[in-house]
Amino acid sequence: MNISARFHLRLQGPHHSPIGPGKISLLEAIATEGSISAGAKKHQMSYRRAWQLVDEVNQALRSPAVLTAVGGRKGGGAVLTPEGESLVRLYREVEAQALDTNQTRLQALRALFNPSAPAA
Amino acid sequence: MNISARFHLRLQGPHHSPIGPGKISLLEAIATEGSISAGAKKHQMSYRRAWQLVDEVNQALRSPAVLTAVGGRKGGGAVLTPEGESLVRLYREVEAQALDTNQTRLQALRALFNPSAPAA
Repeated sequence: MNISARFHLRLQGPHHSPIGPGKISLLEAIATEGSISAGAKKHQMSYRRAWQLVDEVNQALRSPAVLTAVGGRKGGGAVLTPEGESLVRLYREVEAQALDTNQTRLQALRALFNPSAPAA
Repeated sequence: MNISARFHLRLQGPHHSPIGPGKISLLEAIATEGSISAGAKKHQMSYRRAWQLVDEVNQALRSPAVLTAVGGRKGGGAVLTPEGESLVRLYREVEAQALDTNQTRLQALRALFNPSAPAA
């Protein structure tokens, strides 16, 4: 039986927008692709929207998660700062550890599910 | 600093609607209130919507999570079955355990956040 269990962690401070799976995944795409625009494209969102989300993350942290270079040959790339890298790494570790520590309970949950398709 | 960390677990089988925080919370309300209609009211949703969500949960499991009594003095109450109780209990244990096992990482994540309000 294939019952998937997915965790979403949402970090929410009193003064800022929450940081959850969408923003973390966007940061990963920016890190991989090397720019906000390419990260936005990978997530099928507008550059404006991606910039806005990055701005929200940067404002939520003590020190920005993403730095951009203005101009240059590639038209301004973007990189994760060490803080941005820590944010993404810790977030993913938390998710992985949450699944790992709960293997027995998740197995018990999966066992409650009906393995077959419902009657039409 | 008060950065809240909330987990959401979503269980998704190939044939059925996912079970996540909304349905679990509805089941808890039904158990506490003793009927689908009172559970629906507590969640500010229509009876029809609550019934639909309960039906999705019942169809996803091997054996129903909620049983209803037709008629009677209270106009038909609802109870969680042992399977329904196991579902809710395990789900909440998984969430609690996920936070507990990650205390150190969550502390490191919280330390990345800006404790003060943004400049207006």
